[in-house]
Amino acid sequence: KKLDFHVATGMKYKIYRDQEEISALPQVIKREKFIAHELAFDIQEGQETVIYKFAANLSSENHSKSELIPRCHALLEMVHEKGFAAMKKEQALAWTKKWEESDITIEGDTSAQQGIRFNIFQLHQTYTGEDQRLNIGPKGFTGEKYGGSTYWDTEAYCLPFYLSTADQKVARNLVIYRYKHLQKAIENAEKLGFNHGAALYPMVTMNGEECHNEWEITFEEIHRNGAMAYAIYDYIRYTGDEEYLAQYGLEVLIGISRFWAQRVNYSQEKQQYVMLGVTGPNEYENNVNNNWYTSKMASWTMQYTLESLEKVKASDVGIFNEILAKTQFAESGEVADWKKIIDNIYLPEDASRGVFLQQEGFLDKELIKVKDLDPRHLPINQNWSWDRILRSCFIKQADVLQGIYCFEHEFDEETIKRNFDFYEPYTVHESSLSPCVHSILAARLGYKEKAYEMYLRTARLDLDNYNNDTEDGCHITSMAGTWMSIVKGFAGMRVSEGSLHFNPFTPDQWKSYAFNIRFREYLLRIKVNKMDVEIENHSDRPVTVYLYGIAHEIEPHKVEVLEQM
Amino acid sequence: KKLDFHVATGMKYKIYRDQEEISALPQVIKREKFIAHELAFDIQEGQETVIYKFAANLSSENHSKSELIPRCHALLEMVHEKGFAAMKKEQALAWTKKWEESDITIEGDTSAQQGIRFNIFQLHQTYTGEDQRLNIGPKGFTGEKYGGSTYWDTEAYCLPFYLSTADQKVARNLVIYRYKHLQKAIENAEKLGFNHGAALYPMVTMNGEECHNEWEITFEEIHRNGAMAYAIYDYIRYTGDEEYLAQYGLEVLIGISRFWAQRVNYSQEKQQYVMLGVTGPNEYENNVNNNWYTSKMASWTMQYTLESLEKVKASDVGIFNEILAKTQFAESGEVADWKKIIDNIYLPEDASRGVFLQQEGFLDKELIKVKDLDPRHLPINQNWSWDRILRSCFIKQADVLQGIYCFEHEFDEETIKRNFDFYEPYTVHESSLSPCVHSILAARLGYKEKAYEMYLRTARLDLDNYNNDTEDGCHITSMAGTWMSIVKGFAGMRVSEGSLHFNPFTPDQWKSYAFNIRFREYLLRIKVNKMDVEIENHSDRPVTVYLYGIAHEIEPHKVEVLEQM
Repeated sequence: KKLDFHVATGMKYKIYRDQEEISALPQVIKREKFIAHELAFDIQEGQETVIYKFAANLSSENHSKSELIPRCHALLEMVHEKGFAAMKKEQALAWTKKWEESDITIEGDTSAQQGIRFNIFQLHQTYTGEDQRLNIGPKGFTGEKYGGSTYWDTEAYCLPFYLSTADQKVARNLVIYRYKHLQKAIENAEKLGFNHGAALYPMVTMNGEECHNEWEITFEEIHRNGAMAYAIYDYIRYTGDEEYLAQYGLEVLIGISRFWAQRVNYSQEKQQYVMLGVTGPNEYENNVNNNWYTSKMASWTMQYTLESLEKVKASDVGIFNEILAKTQFAESGEVADWKKIIDNIYLPEDASRGVFLQQEGFLDKELIKVKDLDPRHLPINQNWSWDRILRSCFIKQADVLQGIYCFEHEFDEETIKRNFDFYEPYTVHESSLSPCVHSILAARLGYKEKAYEMYLRTARLDLDNYNNDTEDGCHITSMAGTWMSIVKGFAGMRVSEGSLHFNPFTPDQWKSYAFNIRFREYLLRIKVNKMDVEIENHSDRPVTVYLYGIAHEIEPHKVEVLEQM
Repeated sequence: KKLDFHVATGMKYKIYRDQEEISALPQVIKREKFIAHELAFDIQEGQETVIYKFAANLSSENHSKSELIPRCHALLEMVHEKGFAAMKKEQALAWTKKWEESDITIEGDTSAQQGIRFNIFQLHQTYTGEDQRLNIGPKGFTGEKYGGSTYWDTEAYCLPFYLSTADQKVARNLVIYRYKHLQKAIENAEKLGFNHGAALYPMVTMNGEECHNEWEITFEEIHRNGAMAYAIYDYIRYTGDEEYLAQYGLEVLIGISRFWAQRVNYSQEKQQYVMLGVTGPNEYENNVNNNWYTSKMASWTMQYTLESLEKVKASDVGIFNEILAKTQFAESGEVADWKKIIDNIYLPEDASRGVFLQQEGFLDKELIKVKDLDPRHLPINQNWSWDRILRSCFIKQADVLQGIYCFEHEFDEETIKRNFDFYEPYTVHESSLSPCVHSILAARLGYKEKAYEMYLRTARLDLDNYNNDTEDGCHITSMAGTWMSIVKGFAGMRVSEGSLHFNPFTPDQWKSYAFNIRFREYLLRIKVNKMDVEIENHSDRPVTVYLYGIAHEIEPHKVEVLEQM
């Protein structure tokens, strides 16, 4: 159905001979005249002439079929009338606002400066948050690979960028996108044998239906379901929009928790709940049992759903009862079931190493570090057979560490360090989504060189065509990860109990860096030098910001210069 | 290359008017005249006329391209000259010999009689053993499914039938078929990252190359490699053709053992060798660790290869050294490596139940018996999603029990019983190759009703179109399994130390059954009544046969009537 839409496209030309207007045009527009010339327009040689082409493109997704052509013509008339110069001014104004909200400046590294601005530009080009039906394809609109479909990349990697750099409604629309697909997620789970409103969000989708076709991904890479729940948590934590739970979030959380509760089974052998046959974020493993990340995500979702039920009940019992009725939620029974699972889920660990196990049996593998591999074998996905990859210990992208990143606040520094030190050396980072999470954790642990090394792996991925695949399109979702490497990594930004926290350092290779972020009603600019940290409050109200754990109140339109630790 | 062959086909017609010859024709030939009539042959109405169509079909696999057409014409002349009656006589004579060697008669059950004869007929139609380049497709020549390719079905299910019912060269050619593909099997393993002559036989093949395209099968269902080794053992055990080892077998065994030695890895965690990421015979599991059957098959292969090396060395050190040179076998190193693995391979068991574990973690599954499933869910492969099947305990076909069947002599009756009692109730037998193995083991354990029930599941599979899929072609390899259910199951035939052993019983539903078998230089007929067992020696030399463990010498061309136990 989604693909059965109609498009109306129109074009119109306008010829300028005004000398001043022409000289103000950027080069890219001047080139238009030659293309236009080839189209046999009547241009006298040597004359300073520019031909503008105005195009309009409307879709039946937004207009009824019968209205399409007249609306397209009317729009074309309007823009033709308005002219290029006026539109350019509007466009520049809109971008000025976007850069005010989201710019990052880097002193002492022009190449890094260019890289991060290229990324920020591409991310804003890709998603504006105007339309709840739209989302972010891993290649945005820059290439046909992945067909413009939506992945868990949106929730796991892109949401934080839009939360911090755009109006709240942009991130909110990203989260609502999944609310609108809830019914499809329930149908998807039913097809696999689940029932009673259990929801499994698709791995890849255009309209809520699963569009991927490999069992080891669609049926097993179910941790994505947790990412949908986590995004609700992340959105509310950042924005403070608690009402979202009752309006949209809770229904989604109930559906996902029901899925987890049906997806585990009780092992008589272990006397615990196990989750069999899954593929974790590390897609270099398939059909494993008890992937720590997935099981942790599952039990966390159920816990968060229980807390959310209590919150909504306490804040508005009327809405609460409506949601119960709508979802046919059997409060006592389901709550008790979930509690049993939460209290008794099997999360594999290795006591001697003090690490969580990526999956049961991980330690049976031959443990070879990436640095000890013959470099001619790298990347392994271009040199090894699939079964050799599966049997190996090599990790495509953060898996246990993805969980540590998500639930960082639950773990002490030593635990984070042990897991990072154990897993990172086995990680080949053959997904562009891998380095950012490692960069953030490395920064958290004070591994400054490692944090910078990981940042570099994707900073200019498409500008420099590192992986020789930019022709497939830009790595849009990975660009959001690079943004995170700087803001959550180097600057150590976190949100906790309604406040922003920073633990910044400056990479040795940079002189300073600064970024603008939006947080609730505030617009802030953070600048990190070698010696100090400047926090500038562009808002009309004072804001409390924590630097290295110490609260500082910044007055409206003032800068506070604080010492770097 | 295999598919680039040429065919020459010719036809010729002959008209008979001889009254006597016509009346002797079977109905199927009489119908020819109408087809012929439609082809506008000049036949006068009412006249007793039969038109024979003689066809010849030659392939460039056997003749040079330039010779094809003249040879086809010459052949056509020859058969046209010979005529239908003479050819029919030759055909009948050939079949008489085949039935003498392989017939099974069943008294008291006409439908079972028809079923087993249909199967024996189809098996002889499929494979004659004249050509070492040919093998047995799961559908024979009766349908296009599986494309005529060769599977491990040949070694695991068909070899025993041909060993017992045809000239020794027939089974020998089946085994040599794989010898001829050894180089391709080595190349196949190299593609997956193995080296030094490790051989992985393909799951599906026409010419030795892998023709299947799913990683969970081609890369992981490697137990088939063990079936190739076991077939060599089975062939030599039955025929006594010890020379086969030096001539062909040992090279294949070395290649396969090298594969196993490279496919396991040493687990520091277990301090044992493990085999990660395999698919066992039960294809309702994928990518499991330490599948008992596969690991057992691997260690057995290495052990058998070591014994075979010693045998060949002792019998002919010249040939032995030639094989060493040809295979670049590093005797001391490789032997020591294999011994270490054999002594220390991880074979999962459950001590409390006293059973081998299908794979590590099997007991974490929800253990539901097939009889407790809602019958509307059966067959699960038509009603359940793939991940639900994978996570379930349900077993498609014998897996641990396939190993118990192969290595029965290593286990005491209690062990066989515990494993059968544990696994059979979880087995859905959704492969037509499953029931025969269960029938044989059930018979071995004295579970007569279960043995008969399992026999019935495939006895008339295609005659009655049980699974509604006979239009895809007959289940040829399963037919060999049905033959085994009677001979190895009900009659309990085994070969041990060069002698035939029988432990027969008669199913309650039958009055008696009898079968002819060839064993080495002997042709025997065994008849099992309700009360006694007749053993008839059709050979010119006395033969020693064990009945219920007691040796009986049967004189040439004599019948011995012995009491049934």
